[in-house]
Amino acid sequence: MSKITSQSKDFSQWYLDVVKIADLADYSKVKGCMVIKPYGYAIWENIQSELDRLIKEAGVKNVYFPLLIPESFLQREKDHVEGFAPECAVVTHGGGKKLTENLVIRPTSETIMYDTFADWIQSHRDLPLKINQWANIIRWEMRTRPFLRTTEFLWQEGHTAHKDKAGADEEAYRALKMYEDFDKEFLALPVLTGKKSDREKFAGALYTLSTEALARDGKAIQAGTSHNLGTTFSESFNIQYQDENGELKRVWQTSWGVSTRLIGTLIVVHGDEQGLRLPPKIAPVQVVIVPILKDDSKDKVLAACNQVVSDLTNVRSEVDARDTVSPGYKFAEWEVKGVPIRIEIGPRDLENGSCVVARRDTGEKTTCELSQLFTVVPKLLKEIQDNMFAQALAYREENTRSADTYDEFKKVLEEHGGFILSGWCGNEDCEIKIQEETKATIRVIKEEEVKCKCVLCGSDAKNRVYFAKAY
Amino acid sequence: MSKITSQSKDFSQWYLDVVKIADLADYSKVKGCMVIKPYGYAIWENIQSELDRLIKEAGVKNVYFPLLIPESFLQREKDHVEGFAPECAVVTHGGGKKLTENLVIRPTSETIMYDTFADWIQSHRDLPLKINQWANIIRWEMRTRPFLRTTEFLWQEGHTAHKDKAGADEEAYRALKMYEDFDKEFLALPVLTGKKSDREKFAGALYTLSTEALARDGKAIQAGTSHNLGTTFSESFNIQYQDENGELKRVWQTSWGVSTRLIGTLIVVHGDEQGLRLPPKIAPVQVVIVPILKDDSKDKVLAACNQVVSDLTNVRSEVDARDTVSPGYKFAEWEVKGVPIRIEIGPRDLENGSCVVARRDTGEKTTCELSQLFTVVPKLLKEIQDNMFAQALAYREENTRSADTYDEFKKVLEEHGGFILSGWCGNEDCEIKIQEETKATIRVIKEEEVKCKCVLCGSDAKNRVYFAKAY
Repeated sequence: MSKITSQSKDFSQWYLDVVKIADLADYSKVKGCMVIKPYGYAIWENIQSELDRLIKEAGVKNVYFPLLIPESFLQREKDHVEGFAPECAVVTHGGGKKLTENLVIRPTSETIMYDTFADWIQSHRDLPLKINQWANIIRWEMRTRPFLRTTEFLWQEGHTAHKDKAGADEEAYRALKMYEDFDKEFLALPVLTGKKSDREKFAGALYTLSTEALARDGKAIQAGTSHNLGTTFSESFNIQYQDENGELKRVWQTSWGVSTRLIGTLIVVHGDEQGLRLPPKIAPVQVVIVPILKDDSKDKVLAACNQVVSDLTNVRSEVDARDTVSPGYKFAEWEVKGVPIRIEIGPRDLENGSCVVARRDTGEKTTCELSQLFTVVPKLLKEIQDNMFAQALAYREENTRSADTYDEFKKVLEEHGGFILSGWCGNEDCEIKIQEETKATIRVIKEEEVKCKCVLCGSDAKNRVYFAKAY
Repeated sequence: MSKITSQSKDFSQWYLDVVKIADLADYSKVKGCMVIKPYGYAIWENIQSELDRLIKEAGVKNVYFPLLIPESFLQREKDHVEGFAPECAVVTHGGGKKLTENLVIRPTSETIMYDTFADWIQSHRDLPLKINQWANIIRWEMRTRPFLRTTEFLWQEGHTAHKDKAGADEEAYRALKMYEDFDKEFLALPVLTGKKSDREKFAGALYTLSTEALARDGKAIQAGTSHNLGTTFSESFNIQYQDENGELKRVWQTSWGVSTRLIGTLIVVHGDEQGLRLPPKIAPVQVVIVPILKDDSKDKVLAACNQVVSDLTNVRSEVDARDTVSPGYKFAEWEVKGVPIRIEIGPRDLENGSCVVARRDTGEKTTCELSQLFTVVPKLLKEIQDNMFAQALAYREENTRSADTYDEFKKVLEEHGGFILSGWCGNEDCEIKIQEETKATIRVIKEEEVKCKCVLCGSDAKNRVYFAKAY
């Protein structure tokens, strides 16, 4: 097995090593596009199935809209086209002929969907309309990294229409909360949530809400977003409904999404020097059983291992029975792959009716009776899930500092990285200057009344905001 | 609710009416691409989840490969590029610049996958390699119909690599059998299976196996295919492995797929004058409960309906509590949508502790005690599932005829349509002439020894084959 670069030496290279050695993804010959391998895709399937359930519980229905969007649709909304046109892949020929109108591959589906919403929505009885799709997206990217930033990625995009601002506000915050809860419960990811600055919001949105995690290199990573689109698109696409009094009104809309970037987020938040650490709830393999094989007891030990798999109902477990590599090699390989629990069974363990149980989150090893595994393992999986969240939260709290002056701000950023909570006057000039000079951007705005000064210009702050360098 | 054109009057228009009125799909403004609406997409999700389980049980792992394929990849295999290049959508610009090499949107993923297989496969220990992906596909089509033939469609594509011909044969037939069983068990679809003629096989395959259903207008519809690709692609993409003796050998490959066309197949096989009829196992709503609402008993009746939903655990049921339309309107609407069982509960039923149970497959109505529904309904769902298969099988058997002479062949085709079993000499000239003169094509070859004559030329037949006009 290849060696993983140390996190402290070169975090970026550590990341690429983990993706490769844990067998999550491969490069393709298409610039910026990755091949998601079975182990990586299984993580995505687990994310999908859990999140899809939450989406449906919120009364949102799944649909599928075309991949290709007429260029003229994109152009109907000025901010939107400015934001996305430079990133588009353009289809100019189809069926052997030049097209009369170019088509772009969806960089996001607002325009193609909302053209149809205008047909679907006529009356207040058609509202709220709440749909979602799981789809692939293309955004031309110059500098790519598997899962974190790729030209093609997989995502879900929710799109809703409402009678008024209150309805859209409520839905945008509901989606944000859904992501926050999902990140916590399933991915063991603590996230900061809040509004983006206007400069960082989605092209065409009234405002954007975001979930932001903190990677172990001290950089912020945007894990999901939810937008109140206001009436921007209902104006461009003429989506109107007749209200209870027969009056024609424009709908208010939201859209919200998370993508395969969540897998990248898992890696950079939970990974350690040994590789990946996966939260049990979304780990494709929750328990790996490694037999210690000696010639004279081989069959017995393998039988005991297989028995453990049978005993562990409702646990995703498997036996690594390969006889081409040593147990030590297997330990290292499953560690890189981040499997939460490893069970070792050798001939001597078998004589004692016991086994060794190793936790990936803490590295701790204990002895356990084989007959007790069916109760011990599910409890331990839960403990690991909770501990991983606690560890990530502690890390974020240790790495969230406040700064009142610009000197302090720069010092904290240089020495520690992480989140910096500071006052901001709300002026884009200050935001830009801070970014140019320090590379830190406003990740989210803390929505509360404040009495403090802008960290750069010293005038009255409108809000305190979390700054960080970001992925 | 709009009226559905009669099947006997205009089957094509009947089809389009059902798709629209049952709310399965909508047209989009992108030529040949459809919008799959919630009800249609829910059918696809049920198909996906059941079939995905079967695919995984066969040891196949899910992955995801890039949407975009360099044109040069497609060109590496001569037959393949000839077959697919005319149907490709071509991306010539990305990120605001003209690309140095054009990219096509995958019309199928052999080339992009197999370029990577060459890296993944080195040794006999890497074989068999079995992967699958759920993805969207673009094939430029001139004449499209929702689900049956669309420029963009959703599908799964399995791709495997084996040591030798025997391994690839076994896998190609395994996939065919998996589809046949899935079609029968979940979709209540009887299908003929067998080899395609060389003229009808997949571009680049050694041979193609197919599942063929019979629509109620007497036309055949190809529901799924499985290809033994031989070493065609392992030669073009240089996929080699070192065998047990250290010798370098080319892998043998298969690919197999089904698509959203299965939804179209369900419609044309099971649909009737009242609209869609859905097999219970993949119906998004298995039981709809329609309350007969009168002012003085409204709350009680609704409460009883909701109680039925609670009682029917493990059944997908819902109450249609709308007060804007009449029960009769609801009956018709759920009939078009093909819901297998409708339960009607009115004040008088409630007094008797009973309800009316209507079957969509036979139209039969019976009275049932409310307290017995939890046992009656699951049994009835199973009965409907079995009966729908039996009905479709009987229809196909009635509409499968043999013809020994060309005159007989033409007479049967004109008078009845359906499948015609006839001898074929194996000569492409006869195949082409029959198609040109009658529009019938060879759907599958019956793999058995025969002693009979070619229906066209009268020379010794190599096989008997099923002819039909097809979708």
